Amino acid sequence: MDLHIFSNIQKHISLSESEKLYLRNALPVKELKRKELVLRQGQICRNLYYVESGSLRAFNLNDDGKESTIMFAIRDWWVTDMNGFVNQKKAQLSIEALEHCRLLELSYDLLERLYTEIPKFERFFRILFQNAYIREQQRAFHNIALSTEQRYQYFIDKYPDIVEKITQKQIATYLGVTPEFLSAVKKK
Amino acid sequence: MDLHIFSNIQKHISLSESEKLYLRNALPVKELKRKELVLRQGQICRNLYYVESGSLRAFNLNDDGKESTIMFAIRDWWVTDMNGFVNQKKAQLSIEALEHCRLLELSYDLLERLYTEIPKFERFFRILFQNAYIREQQRAFHNIALSTEQRYQYFIDKYPDIVEKITQKQIATYLGVTPEFLSAVKKK
Repeated sequence: MDLHIFSNIQKHISLSESEKLYLRNALPVKELKRKELVLRQGQICRNLYYVESGSLRAFNLNDDGKESTIMFAIRDWWVTDMNGFVNQKKAQLSIEALEHCRLLELSYDLLERLYTEIPKFERFFRILFQNAYIREQQRAFHNIALSTEQRYQYFIDKYPDIVEKITQKQIATYLGVTPEFLSAVKKK
Repeated sequence: MDLHIFSNIQKHISLSESEKLYLRNALPVKELKRKELVLRQGQICRNLYYVESGSLRAFNLNDDGKESTIMFAIRDWWVTDMNGFVNQKKAQLSIEALEHCRLLELSYDLLERLYTEIPKFERFFRILFQNAYIREQQRAFHNIALSTEQRYQYFIDKYPDIVEKITQKQIATYLGVTPEFLSAVKKK
């Protein structure tokens, strides 16, 4: 059976059959049940995950009990606490399964080895980070420039596949408003 | 005279003397006067700039005349409208000099050639984009999770070198609040 990750990687670089075989053996499969955490805030963040199937939510819980959703991830996305992962330090985020998930686990050590042994992975992740940077900068721009109504509209237009998997409360914690405020915005 | 860009690049990859010579000849110097634009919103974004000296501000002006500051850049930073640059399309942002600036201009075509001819630049920009992604994700997180007061404090603690070059009005457009609101926050 072919893994989705191969077509994800081959959007930007080509892989030989032996490289695919290597990856297939090197990336453990991680199965998660709904509501299970693959990363807990405060733990050292050792892995980057590719989502073969299912959907997840990465969020921060602050001392006052306020939850902020940093990102959602569905099939064919990569997800981790990137700051924790890159610097191998404690995660600011928890990542929970919104439904049954099948992930591939790429450890920090393996990724560093990939960069050295198969340098075209530098290119792959350069493009991945470049796109992620653009996406996050767009989000920061929208946060300061647009109304909640416009940001809600943008989110549901841009990520319809995510919207159908999540609750209104989760969208509210992604937009940084209360569920009541979001509900009032939607009524308008 | 050595260029600052070499030590910037050599934080992550090493450069031979011939590579430095090549870059020195391939990267035109761009001098800007205060208030001059190096990119105008709506233009095709052809270049990525490295700041040898001076400071700049990247901002969007919407149809209602509202300005949003997306980023500031000082000596040793890279700046462009990344979405426009990577996709070679119209810029959403203008970039203006806050004082006399000396920039090095890296065109889209040259950067694509660098990736092919000197592949370690994939590594350099992978790390640059990875850090930029982390920074922007942190900003988006703060936008939804923190109060304006906390975000102001974070900004002046994290970027003291930028703060001394910019006005309170410019900080307000970066935080997405009115100058009056920022002034009230600071009085507290």
